[in-house]
Amino acid sequence: MKELVLGIDIGGTNTDFGLVDSDGKIMARGHLDTRQYPAAGSFVAALTEAVAKLLQKDKSFQLRGVGAGVPNANPFTGIVEDPPNLPWEGRVALREMLAEQLKVPAEISNDANAAAMGELLYGAGGSQNFVVITLGTGIGAGIVADGVLLQGRDGLAGEIGHMIAIPDGRLCNCGRKGCFERYASATGLKETMHELLSRPGARSLLSGSDPRNLSSKRIFEAAESGDPLANEAFDYTARIIGKVLADVAAILSPEKFFFLGGLANAGERLLKPAKSYFENALLFIHQNKIAFEISSLKDREAAILGSAALLWHKLRN
Amino acid sequence: MKELVLGIDIGGTNTDFGLVDSDGKIMARGHLDTRQYPAAGSFVAALTEAVAKLLQKDKSFQLRGVGAGVPNANPFTGIVEDPPNLPWEGRVALREMLAEQLKVPAEISNDANAAAMGELLYGAGGSQNFVVITLGTGIGAGIVADGVLLQGRDGLAGEIGHMIAIPDGRLCNCGRKGCFERYASATGLKETMHELLSRPGARSLLSGSDPRNLSSKRIFEAAESGDPLANEAFDYTARIIGKVLADVAAILSPEKFFFLGGLANAGERLLKPAKSYFENALLFIHQNKIAFEISSLKDREAAILGSAALLWHKLRN
Repeated sequence: MKELVLGIDIGGTNTDFGLVDSDGKIMARGHLDTRQYPAAGSFVAALTEAVAKLLQKDKSFQLRGVGAGVPNANPFTGIVEDPPNLPWEGRVALREMLAEQLKVPAEISNDANAAAMGELLYGAGGSQNFVVITLGTGIGAGIVADGVLLQGRDGLAGEIGHMIAIPDGRLCNCGRKGCFERYASATGLKETMHELLSRPGARSLLSGSDPRNLSSKRIFEAAESGDPLANEAFDYTARIIGKVLADVAAILSPEKFFFLGGLANAGERLLKPAKSYFENALLFIHQNKIAFEISSLKDREAAILGSAALLWHKLRN
Repeated sequence: MKELVLGIDIGGTNTDFGLVDSDGKIMARGHLDTRQYPAAGSFVAALTEAVAKLLQKDKSFQLRGVGAGVPNANPFTGIVEDPPNLPWEGRVALREMLAEQLKVPAEISNDANAAAMGELLYGAGGSQNFVVITLGTGIGAGIVADGVLLQGRDGLAGEIGHMIAIPDGRLCNCGRKGCFERYASATGLKETMHELLSRPGARSLLSGSDPRNLSSKRIFEAAESGDPLANEAFDYTARIIGKVLADVAAILSPEKFFFLGGLANAGERLLKPAKSYFENALLFIHQNKIAFEISSLKDREAAILGSAALLWHKLRN
């Protein structure tokens, strides 16, 4: 028999899932359009049906458990509460629903924590003290300390995106001002670029672009082409990443920061200057001791592997 | 037999030690003048002699281990490296020296981590997720996450005192600018008071004081007497504590912050406004969920109990 865990990455638009073996190999994959299922019940029913089909592909497949990464998931209660960008309303007992329908143990967690578990089990190069940072629409972080996921009193640890990077800075969705994710996410980079383009006399390859069409990918390409303003936008983002992560390092003393998500695709263009600002901002006891790395898990796979890792980790311990 | 652990609090001026039972009761105490022993070898020899005398007081006393809280202690290597304010030079293998001389297992850690272990074993009211913050000459922090001391890759986690509170602010001993401990320690409060007194036309009960004679205790007394500038100094300190700890809470999601050390003696005068600024600065998911408390362990006892707790914790697990 081939023992497998279902890893599910539930996003506002797409839900990707896969059957993952204990070595982190995805044996079969599937997909749902999240928006087709306005209620969690119909979503779980459709998922269960799709998974049953996947399992029929190979008679040796044996489902041992299910792990789901989803925004606002509380790993202790198993409940997802008012998830942003998802159509589900109120409190959804997702862990219980998954376990009942799929008839195996289930775990849920937010996506950044799932990514950190994926890194711990299938990446990380043996590191036991690291932080996985997802630079996407927002910023999430999963913290592993001494080989254990740091969850805090309620599973809500790791909200690095809501550290204050710039006092009285940009207004955040959380209602406060100056949050890290307003600057260092893909959204933040776009806003920085928009501000730079709005300066009188600004000249850039991106001048005249409709702000709605600005993407971190286009800004990256402009920077690669030598556009000074696009480079300035990356430099500004890098400086803020360096500064905030120096504070995070003072608290956690990690070995590594792993980066994941849309903006992490900018690679060295972002991480090289960010690392340089980080070293400059760092307390001397940490200097030249903490690595910045792109996650070894591929973006789309990372979420599936990480979600499966939530359960594999439990099965092993 | 009464099983005891020796807890040692090694400071630049005073070394206090005590024999602690597994319930956290100090059965006997002793003291050394740290400055009399410029070499670690002579210090440990004097300590061993003093402890032998303590043990002779009661025939039922049985030494099971020793724990020491000391600045710059690495709990993994057992080495103390260039401890600030101590006369010892270079790398001192303190854990090994203690274990050899006292012939029992030894543990060492920095003082804030020792305080956190003391809080976990003998205080904390059952909390498994908290941060102990020592507001003394500097600021230290010991973090307990899910019932385990968070140490990071090298035992140097918890340097909350070196988070940047004010960009380009006051110069810190660490060589950087704006560190939290330059504002929210006893030293920081004195500097704030000194700045306020230096303002043109400043009127205060403390006007004309020699800056060297300003103490956090005198500033506290002036504030209690209704002195507006002394109150302003506390308010400014409280605002910075609230702001920085809101960032710490975003990362760790703790249940409680415990305060210890000289400035914590100001009690509600400091903690009440600090808590109010903290709540205002906090991400909404954490609001009204995280307590500020004065440590239940008495200042001088906390260090001894905490150091003993390093070893008691190990003996129990």
